[in-house]
Amino acid sequence: MNRILIVVLVAGACLAQPAEDSVPASSNIMGAQYPRIHSDGRVTFRVQARDAQKVQLMPGSAAGSDSGLGAGPIDMVKDDRGFWTVTTKPAVPGFHYYWFIIDGVPANDNGSESYYGWGKECSGVEVPEKGVDFYDAKPVPHGDVRIHWYFSKLTGQWRQAYVYTPPDYDTGRARYPVLYLQHGAGENVTTWTKQGHADLILDNLIAERRAKPMLVVMETGYATKVGATPVASPTGGQPQIPNAFEDVIITELIPMIDSSFRTIADREHRAMAGLSMGGRQTLQITLTHLDKFAWIGSFSAPAIANFDVKTSYNGALSDASAFDKKVHLVWIGAGTAEDRIHQGALALHEALDKAGVHNVFFESQTTGHEFQTWRRSLHDFAPRLFR
Amino acid sequence: MNRILIVVLVAGACLAQPAEDSVPASSNIMGAQYPRIHSDGRVTFRVQARDAQKVQLMPGSAAGSDSGLGAGPIDMVKDDRGFWTVTTKPAVPGFHYYWFIIDGVPANDNGSESYYGWGKECSGVEVPEKGVDFYDAKPVPHGDVRIHWYFSKLTGQWRQAYVYTPPDYDTGRARYPVLYLQHGAGENVTTWTKQGHADLILDNLIAERRAKPMLVVMETGYATKVGATPVASPTGGQPQIPNAFEDVIITELIPMIDSSFRTIADREHRAMAGLSMGGRQTLQITLTHLDKFAWIGSFSAPAIANFDVKTSYNGALSDASAFDKKVHLVWIGAGTAEDRIHQGALALHEALDKAGVHNVFFESQTTGHEFQTWRRSLHDFAPRLFR
Repeated sequence: MNRILIVVLVAGACLAQPAEDSVPASSNIMGAQYPRIHSDGRVTFRVQARDAQKVQLMPGSAAGSDSGLGAGPIDMVKDDRGFWTVTTKPAVPGFHYYWFIIDGVPANDNGSESYYGWGKECSGVEVPEKGVDFYDAKPVPHGDVRIHWYFSKLTGQWRQAYVYTPPDYDTGRARYPVLYLQHGAGENVTTWTKQGHADLILDNLIAERRAKPMLVVMETGYATKVGATPVASPTGGQPQIPNAFEDVIITELIPMIDSSFRTIADREHRAMAGLSMGGRQTLQITLTHLDKFAWIGSFSAPAIANFDVKTSYNGALSDASAFDKKVHLVWIGAGTAEDRIHQGALALHEALDKAGVHNVFFESQTTGHEFQTWRRSLHDFAPRLFR
Repeated sequence: MNRILIVVLVAGACLAQPAEDSVPASSNIMGAQYPRIHSDGRVTFRVQARDAQKVQLMPGSAAGSDSGLGAGPIDMVKDDRGFWTVTTKPAVPGFHYYWFIIDGVPANDNGSESYYGWGKECSGVEVPEKGVDFYDAKPVPHGDVRIHWYFSKLTGQWRQAYVYTPPDYDTGRARYPVLYLQHGAGENVTTWTKQGHADLILDNLIAERRAKPMLVVMETGYATKVGATPVASPTGGQPQIPNAFEDVIITELIPMIDSSFRTIADREHRAMAGLSMGGRQTLQITLTHLDKFAWIGSFSAPAIANFDVKTSYNGALSDASAFDKKVHLVWIGAGTAEDRIHQGALALHEALDKAGVHNVFFESQTTGHEFQTWRRSLHDFAPRLFR
């Protein structure tokens, strides 16, 4: 009974005095009135904290990007009922992580759904982009995202892959190519669908016949081998337990997907892409396993230290002509507001061009190290696959 | 770069001084050391809050149940590094919602994954039950849980159903019976798998040949019709917008499932069950739509006001003999620690017995209005279906 009561109370508290030209963010939990998005893209955040001394909004902007919410902790203002409020300047469209800092403690917004990022569950706010609906649910055939258990011997864990199957998967007997799609640092298996809308982006592209129907496999890009111990960091930091995701994807995940789903199980029909840390993992894993992949996407990967076309990745790129025959797509992208990461992507593109390695360079205009860049990246990348 | 750094920092902070006989809860995010479960079931919670004046643990116990974590806000104690800690008495096994209260503000634990309950994202802690593994991931064939979009005209929304498909669904062409399985008040479409492990319970039962392979359809039990306006509450409270979930399941969800999946689309092969509010919804929806359902499960439903076998639910139960011929299972359960809800379930069971309506009564020993009761309920209920 308490359970039923509390819901009514929460809803009641949230109904007070919303700003007039604004609507609740689509990223909110059911019934929550805040955060609210104004027609010009400003966002109003609110939290009730009668006894707190100081409440701040903390935007989860990464890698120097400014989401428009502000750069650091932003003071909120208390009213006489104990509601702390702040309205930002117009935000960059897309999805932005955030949390509150209540008397110094990072605390999620109870009005927001949770979105895994920054190595924890975060609050998030979706700011619509006017006239843009390529990542929205639309009246087209929809694929499913399957939560698929598998046992990983390397890690001794039951792990879950999220597998997008295209709309016609169940009704036919066709086999499909596969895109392995990785999240960024501090994110997980849920991120590309929940924050990224990868499933909806594919649904819409497939409905428009702009992308070939494909499976999209998403998995958490962290793995620790059974019995692994910390090793010295190459950059001189604390010893770290090595991330064994490369071994997991190559020796466990790909064989499991090929045996559990109707895939075309060869390198010509297998792509990998990832964002940020996942972009770096993609370059490492694909370029050192060209027997497994023929299509490569690096979305906002941090610059590769001491990159050399001749020697990096065991010299995989050193013979441009042979590489171009073998690899059908090298796609490099970044947002123009990503500063160093944009510069790094541009430098990689130019180094490949100079060496004669065919590649596509994509710039997401005015967006930073955030999901709007990566939604646009997937939207540009996926139609180029498996042609 | 910032994103990568923050993960390391979070992990570093968490590695300090864990208690010696304890392990991180399986409900924690990757790498988080707290909450920790002691071998005797005590739980240690910890949060860093240097500048806070008062930090409390708030167990999300419902309907008067005591999870063993304690009944109300529990004061935590600060050390000289700003860590606030509390160790509870031995907790009841199972899954318990909780959050912190930091200077009066409810705030989730950044060490926990998020679990939707209490009308918001909550923290949760899993306390193992010694020798019990029927809801664990085991080396048996696993089904998938499919996140399936559909458009609901009644609500004007794109909604998602979570659909469990049994292990052999993809490899054969068989058609399957369907269990519709509902969460409680303040919960949503994710709850039965994330908190309840419904998929693992079915995987294990099917592997042991104790349950027939079936689909399990889970959906959010809240729906608001397009243009709906508040109506007076029958209990005299604030006017409320009616919950249209009954119309959604009958006129939209069931037809969509039957057209999208290989179901046996008749009442003999369709069951419904739910917990708490979902149990009450199940009784209402099944008993007033006996053309649609032949198997009924009420898990810890609150007592039905003025229940009368002869007149309630349009008199569906008034002719015991006719009802028994038509309905193959009425299953009523509750935890013995559920107080009023247990009494209500027992009273319903006795009233049905007295009227000659065949029913099964199940008691979950020593568990309250929490998921351990409902995991056990599903584990007892599912094997009885479709026989």
